Amino acid sequence: MADLPTVAVLGAVGYAGAVAAALLHRHPGFELAHVTARADAGRRLSDLHPRSRVPLELESFDPDLHGAVDAALVCYPHGASAPVVAQLLDRGVRVVDLSADFRLRDPGTYAEWYGEHGAPERFGQAVYGLPELYREAVAGAELVANPGCYPTAAILGLAPLARAGLIGDVVIDAKSGVSGAGREPTHATHFVSIDENLSPYKIGRHRHTPEIEQELSQLGCDRRISFTPHLVPLAQGELVSAYVTPTRDVDAPELEALYRDAYDAEPWIEVRDGAPGVLDVRETNFCSIAVHHDPRTGRVLVFSAIDNLWRGAASQAVQNLNLMFGRPEGEGLPA
Amino acid sequence: MADLPTVAVLGAVGYAGAVAAALLHRHPGFELAHVTARADAGRRLSDLHPRSRVPLELESFDPDLHGAVDAALVCYPHGASAPVVAQLLDRGVRVVDLSADFRLRDPGTYAEWYGEHGAPERFGQAVYGLPELYREAVAGAELVANPGCYPTAAILGLAPLARAGLIGDVVIDAKSGVSGAGREPTHATHFVSIDENLSPYKIGRHRHTPEIEQELSQLGCDRRISFTPHLVPLAQGELVSAYVTPTRDVDAPELEALYRDAYDAEPWIEVRDGAPGVLDVRETNFCSIAVHHDPRTGRVLVFSAIDNLWRGAASQAVQNLNLMFGRPEGEGLPA
Amino acid sequence: MADLPTVAVLGAVGYAGAVAAALLHRHPGFELAHVTARADAGRRLSDLHPRSRVPLELESFDPDLHGAVDAALVCYPHGASAPVVAQLLDRGVRVVDLSADFRLRDPGTYAEWYGEHGAPERFGQAVYGLPELYREAVAGAELVANPGCYPTAAILGLAPLARAGLIGDVVIDAKSGVSGAGREPTHATHFVSIDENLSPYKIGRHRHTPEIEQELSQLGCDRRISFTPHLVPLAQGELVSAYVTPTRDVDAPELEALYRDAYDAEPWIEVRDGAPGVLDVRETNFCSIAVHHDPRTGRVLVFSAIDNLWRGAASQAVQNLNLMFGRPEGEGLPA
Amino acid sequence: MADLPTVAVLGAVGYAGAVAAALLHRHPGFELAHVTARADAGRRLSDLHPRSRVPLELESFDPDLHGAVDAALVCYPHGASAPVVAQLLDRGVRVVDLSADFRLRDPGTYAEWYGEHGAPERFGQAVYGLPELYREAVAGAELVANPGCYPTAAILGLAPLARAGLIGDVVIDAKSGVSGAGREPTHATHFVSIDENLSPYKIGRHRHTPEIEQELSQLGCDRRISFTPHLVPLAQGELVSAYVTPTRDVDAPELEALYRDAYDAEPWIEVRDGAPGVLDVRETNFCSIAVHHDPRTGRVLVFSAIDNLWRGAASQAVQNLNLMFGRPEGEGLPA
Repeated sequence: MADLPTVAVLGAVGYAGAVAAALLHRHPGFELAHVTARADAGRRLSDLHPRSRVPLELESFDPDLHGAVDAALVCYPHGASAPVVAQLLDRGVRVVDLSADFRLRDPGTYAEWYGEHGAPERFGQAVYGLPELYREAVAGAELVANPGCYPTAAILGLAPLARAGLIGDVVIDAKSGVSGAGREPTHATHFVSIDENLSPYKIGRHRHTPEIEQELSQLGCDRRISFTPHLVPLAQGELVSAYVTPTRDVDAPELEALYRDAYDAEPWIEVRDGAPGVLDVRETNFCSIAVHHDPRTGRVLVFSAIDNLWRGAASQAVQNLNLMFGRPEGEGLPA
Repeated sequence: MADLPTVAVLGAVGYAGAVAAALLHRHPGFELAHVTARADAGRRLSDLHPRSRVPLELESFDPDLHGAVDAALVCYPHGASAPVVAQLLDRGVRVVDLSADFRLRDPGTYAEWYGEHGAPERFGQAVYGLPELYREAVAGAELVANPGCYPTAAILGLAPLARAGLIGDVVIDAKSGVSGAGREPTHATHFVSIDENLSPYKIGRHRHTPEIEQELSQLGCDRRISFTPHLVPLAQGELVSAYVTPTRDVDAPELEALYRDAYDAEPWIEVRDGAPGVLDVRETNFCSIAVHHDPRTGRVLVFSAIDNLWRGAASQAVQNLNLMFGRPEGEGLPA
Repeated sequence: MADLPTVAVLGAVGYAGAVAAALLHRHPGFELAHVTARADAGRRLSDLHPRSRVPLELESFDPDLHGAVDAALVCYPHGASAPVVAQLLDRGVRVVDLSADFRLRDPGTYAEWYGEHGAPERFGQAVYGLPELYREAVAGAELVANPGCYPTAAILGLAPLARAGLIGDVVIDAKSGVSGAGREPTHATHFVSIDENLSPYKIGRHRHTPEIEQELSQLGCDRRISFTPHLVPLAQGELVSAYVTPTRDVDAPELEALYRDAYDAEPWIEVRDGAPGVLDVRETNFCSIAVHHDPRTGRVLVFSAIDNLWRGAASQAVQNLNLMFGRPEGEGLPA
Repeated sequence: MADLPTVAVLGAVGYAGAVAAALLHRHPGFELAHVTARADAGRRLSDLHPRSRVPLELESFDPDLHGAVDAALVCYPHGASAPVVAQLLDRGVRVVDLSADFRLRDPGTYAEWYGEHGAPERFGQAVYGLPELYREAVAGAELVANPGCYPTAAILGLAPLARAGLIGDVVIDAKSGVSGAGREPTHATHFVSIDENLSPYKIGRHRHTPEIEQELSQLGCDRRISFTPHLVPLAQGELVSAYVTPTRDVDAPELEALYRDAYDAEPWIEVRDGAPGVLDVRETNFCSIAVHHDPRTGRVLVFSAIDNLWRGAASQAVQNLNLMFGRPEGEGLPA
């Protein structure tokens, strides 16, 4: 065991950080060496997140201490992540960054949606960590930008259409459980605000929009998209409903073949008939996708369900880490 | 009190029927004379629906007995409603039909989506009971077809755009609480199936689709629409998110003026900034609408929230009944 | 209308305050003149609580301005309430205090559970506002201490047994929805902490314990009780389950007669067979009670359900206000 | 792998059966050979329970086919289980019965609570499968009666007190998620009936009562208990709150020592300070226990949380199976 790569999870008291720490604590291929959280330093992670059952004591970030590990998962809010990631990279630590800081590749787009970058010298150096699309690049990366939760579901759902040049136009209506809003207590995340409620949020201005556009563009679909997230009363789980106006007539068998070809060999993608439910993929790394053709309108409808904390964050980060260190891609991820 | 019009609620143990009975039992302008439910005849409505606090005994439908009232609200499933409605009309009873049987006006469309009609001699005789659009016609009607829940929210949300000729294309993504699926226990409505879950249903084939198309067409928008409902883990409440590609460039001030003009005088429509939440309108007759312009894509986004059992069924039926009998339109509806 | 008594609701942005303001805004016998909330002064109450539909602007408390009304409902946290109540009383305002500051009558008990009192000169001057027990005293009171939510359900549930001298020992296990924890966002009230969770809290040290003991003692049961509250994943509603070891053998018919005698004439108490559910009384002033005899153990089981924000706070406050001003006791309370 | 013991899960479409099948499908020490469900024979288990990801085809029970396995988990309703268990035992199959049929050991008590037994020749032959209490007997058993969910939590919570002779009297108030009511759709389990609701059920007559009494008696506490279950709006999870009047004065340190002694070596029992929450143990085999002393009343309060489908049924059955076949006790159970 002495020679297992050591990993630190920075920002381990957020929801995604705690899941990542729990997965790595039980992972046969890594040693979870450190968990950090400045405000809660000195407490055990399992006191704050009993389900994690990670008894490690939370530490304050220390570049010397945490720069000595082999790998780090950085679970900071965007903006706070970049400078720490830069420090770690400088010390030779391989990093999966779960924030948005290194996902975009165009500096102008970043500036427009996020403002000034926290480590401009490192901007553009990350591999976008969607394993089904960038498996080989991830394997060789020093820095992986772990995708946002909505982009993960949206891009996995739309990639076969995008690659086939079939997306003429697309409207994305997304629904997420409340853990997606983070652990910080606010009026908006109070149980009484959410329970029996349902509403859109950040209409026209959610920062996952340019991330989806960037990746669809990479796949050949160079369009502005409409992306609108909604908050629904459940804790974990996310559904993306995408309404595509195709560039030419398609039919159901062609679509089915397209998706089977794309994903039959992918162990973590479940292409299914009917309607995916977020409960089907809860606390797993699976993405469950259904594609439908509506003959009345000619539209193609794609539904894509993930667990926002797992495939949309922590378990996908572990999947990326496995690739980076040459481990079996699904190691440490419960099936 | 002796001369208040008498009303029967037929099918009063369904969710909408029970709310309608509760509203009419306390209504100062009507006398709730009968509540029916064949399978539960002999029991009190309040035993099955404690919140209704309607102590009337449920009866089996009897054309002689129930054909002697002044008005009836028929809360049967589609198909079962038409023959009973026809019997009532023949006896001079004024009817609000909450089923889908009389909502469509084109026989071919009805046949395509529902099959054979249960009272073809009465087909096409109903007024579509959306008061904000058809107030005067409702006032004079013998038979009012109470709109479906999704069409209510969708049409109220889109009417100003449709009338202005602005709808070039529209994708409607709708989300509903579980009471919309009816009171019948099924695997799909079991708490364990719904809780922490979220999924689309009846993809491409929900019967509210032609109803929405019919009414948008009436307002000048003659297009096939995409309509996709989703089931979310809450009991009551419905949100329609409509993504409109406009026929020409518009901007936010123009849209705001359009909606203010349309609805400023309407007491039950709340046009609001930001994002409507279904909890804001729970157990009310209100429809809460927000319209947004997305300058990035040029799209117009409309969000429309109602309580599916109230504005989407029972309270709208009472609103219609008020109009039919010359009562104040909001009488008996808690503000 | 000019001569309706004027009312101020102080602390109107808390959950109970907002319900109280909404009830009084529509009350035919009072004029809601002011709503206050220091931190949100200048905003409309309906912006913070859309369901209230109270368009009044929130003000900062001003003793001159708010001391000029006829009555005030004070919805402050305990401790903060007493000094303001004292100011109001000094100016002749009749007060219903929803905090705990004036509920206890023994100074030593108050000091033990709450510490120093904020207006000792007024301590002991309030009438305990449980209308079914103290109707006449409330009618003549200048200051009414509105009962806590748990005490309301517990005392109404146990009063017939206590008066009959039948309570030998009692264990109270209570369950409450999350609105009982207040509107302040905390980790404990975050949706993700509550959803799919269930746990006891303040074990052995909830401050409603001495309040229940005081009132049971008043009714003849001079015992220390066990009271343990639990937090359950719902927004509004509270169930008290009380397990009584009787002082002598009783049977079901005797118990039924006891409760019918106590409550048959009470419009807001529903004594029922079987099991009360909190949904039955949601958003009403009702208290639903069932009493059972367990012949195996000889125990008497009492279940008592209320809406913690309505009967447990705001609607009971209005009921008290009605009594204080000689209005019909149920005026302004939806049936 | 050829020599792994083969297992059948009978009744695999119920909630507990599906979890058991999922655990055994991934278990390194057993081969899940058959899953049965008469009404759904021919369908894959994963079609009915996507989360199980068990692709086996459901079969109708066939004594020859299913009597040829090494072990069976029988997940039938009580009454239906006994005859099948008897058939399996006759063929040499080792059985864990998840029904109530073999839990009670006194025929008169069985007859009083359940009526006639379905295999009287086998009555009394089972070992009660609570591993922490009967580990050795389970290891040698041909037939294990898997405990009920409430008894599991209650007995584990109370065992240290019972063994120490400290239970003078006990009131048990239990709360369970809805999966405990089974998968059959009923009005009572409809989402709309449960959501935002909370109520007691089977007051004074829940069949887990004699099971708890039997096991407490075995541990030295020969008393009739009060046991009252409540239904709360969550899917999985169960909390038992037990209020004990001790036979003599105790204090907190003594209680803590008692529980630490009893459970420090038990990997699946977590004795904790404060308040256990059911979410802490969700989808695990853990039982989380807190014991409190209330100096005001002298009472001892015990709170015990489990996942009703896991520790209260399926994972405890696997734990028993491990013991019966000499496997590590926690094998196949995610930590």
